[in-house]
Amino acid sequence: MLGNFSYVNPTKLYFGKDALSFLPGELARYGKHVALVYGGGSIKRNGIYDQVMNILKKAGKEVTEISGVMSNPTADKLKEGVQIARKANVDFILAVGGGSCCDYAKALSVSVHYDGDPWDKHFLKMEEPDCEIVPVGCVLTMVGTGSEMNAGSVITNHEQKLKIGHVFGEEVMPRFSILNPEFTMTVPQYQMISGIYDMFNHICEQYFSGDDDNSSDYLAEGLMRSVIHSSRIAVKDPKNYEARSNLMWDATWALNTLIGKGKTQDWMVHMLGQAAGAITNAAHGMTLAAVSLPYYRHILPYGLPKFRRFAVNVWNVQTEGKTDEEIAREGLSAMESWMKELGLVMNLTDLGATEEMIPDIVKATIILNGGYKTLTTEEVEEILKESL
Amino acid sequence: MLGNFSYVNPTKLYFGKDALSFLPGELARYGKHVALVYGGGSIKRNGIYDQVMNILKKAGKEVTEISGVMSNPTADKLKEGVQIARKANVDFILAVGGGSCCDYAKALSVSVHYDGDPWDKHFLKMEEPDCEIVPVGCVLTMVGTGSEMNAGSVITNHEQKLKIGHVFGEEVMPRFSILNPEFTMTVPQYQMISGIYDMFNHICEQYFSGDDDNSSDYLAEGLMRSVIHSSRIAVKDPKNYEARSNLMWDATWALNTLIGKGKTQDWMVHMLGQAAGAITNAAHGMTLAAVSLPYYRHILPYGLPKFRRFAVNVWNVQTEGKTDEEIAREGLSAMESWMKELGLVMNLTDLGATEEMIPDIVKATIILNGGYKTLTTEEVEEILKESL
Repeated sequence: MLGNFSYVNPTKLYFGKDALSFLPGELARYGKHVALVYGGGSIKRNGIYDQVMNILKKAGKEVTEISGVMSNPTADKLKEGVQIARKANVDFILAVGGGSCCDYAKALSVSVHYDGDPWDKHFLKMEEPDCEIVPVGCVLTMVGTGSEMNAGSVITNHEQKLKIGHVFGEEVMPRFSILNPEFTMTVPQYQMISGIYDMFNHICEQYFSGDDDNSSDYLAEGLMRSVIHSSRIAVKDPKNYEARSNLMWDATWALNTLIGKGKTQDWMVHMLGQAAGAITNAAHGMTLAAVSLPYYRHILPYGLPKFRRFAVNVWNVQTEGKTDEEIAREGLSAMESWMKELGLVMNLTDLGATEEMIPDIVKATIILNGGYKTLTTEEVEEILKESL
Repeated sequence: MLGNFSYVNPTKLYFGKDALSFLPGELARYGKHVALVYGGGSIKRNGIYDQVMNILKKAGKEVTEISGVMSNPTADKLKEGVQIARKANVDFILAVGGGSCCDYAKALSVSVHYDGDPWDKHFLKMEEPDCEIVPVGCVLTMVGTGSEMNAGSVITNHEQKLKIGHVFGEEVMPRFSILNPEFTMTVPQYQMISGIYDMFNHICEQYFSGDDDNSSDYLAEGLMRSVIHSSRIAVKDPKNYEARSNLMWDATWALNTLIGKGKTQDWMVHMLGQAAGAITNAAHGMTLAAVSLPYYRHILPYGLPKFRRFAVNVWNVQTEGKTDEEIAREGLSAMESWMKELGLVMNLTDLGATEEMIPDIVKATIILNGGYKTLTTEEVEEILKESL
């Protein structure tokens, strides 16, 4: 832990089959006017909407619905929500859904009392909020993003062909999140495995950076082993409560800042994936899966010791009689086999991308410098073409 | 994660060489009257006392000192502190020291405004506080207990020959803790390795329980591997900042509730060690080291799959051609070699215990039932005799 840092995460988590029973106690802390944020009709079909509405009504809340939050919430949808929430004078925002709803609720929380263009200020310019922030709570129904216990929010602007994530300060973290693994059981297999790869890649993004000797990397390895183990059970038996509950917990800890403390981080897979997502509108986790192996194979020579360690400590690759590079590449092959076993989409073509879109995706890719190699624009293009 | 649970940990951590520079900002949140809790003279010799006092003075605080907090803080010392703190009408308690000072500060925080006997209420009867709680902050100078980010407090009553730990609610957790690894560099080697085994055993206590398939056990394995790795560096090169900083972070996460979430826990090594400590007044981590192997070897047959997993995932024991029990016992042998490498005290005799004390230690041992085998009194006696 060579760097100076601070750590605080005030989000209270209620976990398990009875988690929703703690919602009334939490709601009692906040005012009467609640904005209920959700996506399409899935929470109406599976009964979660009714359960939550009953609790809100019993708590005497006046509920304003902001529904139709899409899987990549847009700047336009954010502006629409701001108008609704402002008119209703909301005291509290309750997100019921997956990471998109949580992200959207946080973007809304810093924008309700801001008079200008919230996309422009909080995403394009990445400025910190300087207005009153409306408190947020989450009822999670889809697993992967970790948005339920962090201050991050990703918003897409289709007009500008940009998908930008901003990690705000601790005051934007949800006050509480309700994590009932049973609520995630009706999510389609495609979304489940997309979420599994999303959480796994969150760990990779924090792990594949730096050459220091850091406790955080050991925690990351433990968490990766847990994800691999439980995902193999969940993909064959999606109703397995134990596996699904482990994955829910893993996702939260994969991106609540813990495993990135005291170290540098990469996040280039997310930059590539988000750029592809901004153009194709494909599922977030799948865009990450599609670009991961071309990217990691490309940077492997620059971070060989870490890729070797990954192979041994995460994938149990045997080392005898092999060069470091052989060991490291065998680790990525093991990861590839696991990804195929899950049924992930392994290329951008299957996500609707074409060779013609590459220039736009390259343009939308923000190049970071925390990984083992700062990519040139040519390298970005090359990796994206290999991902087709 | 089969159980229902909640998780919240509001303690803010400032980590690194510059961590103390955040103390003024934190102090500004609290009232004028500060109780400064510390132990013997070590913080005066190494200059930390002067640094902290300067900050307190610049912040305009009126400081009341409660010094001489011993390594196993006593019920008598607690009562003494309550009188001093009450007279000074303290608004805030700042602990500067190791786990004993943090534990003591928390015991004090729930007792200043309680009129009865605090030992009796909060430890012997394990009742929750129902009075105002004075907020606590910590400047950590010794590593191991994890007290800097949890709500636990252990107090010893020599008259009653009892050492009792109480885990209070989240409102008793320190509001902030300042973790500067350099502050731990002047701790004698004996205390350093005692703290290393304390943190390692905290992980074991949470790990060696249950036969469910739990994410927490994967996190625990990652953390154990980190402790083993960094301790081997620190014991040979105590001034190695990187190793010492990793150990400081590991200790915090070993006992801030995370790795025990959603699972049962054991804690019998602590019960045996604390009983021995109540009679001998030996260093906490050393009492744990002395009783651990006799205890774990005794319960191994009852928790064979977990001990096997421990051997493979934590100690890299090769499995080919061996029975599960052989693999499991090889794991404990690897742990024993590591403990000897650190220079831990491996028996109670060297800590001042004698055969004549055994009945008293047995009597002081609280038998729990979260581990793989609920011990009989005879088994407690047997294990303690094997620990001599």
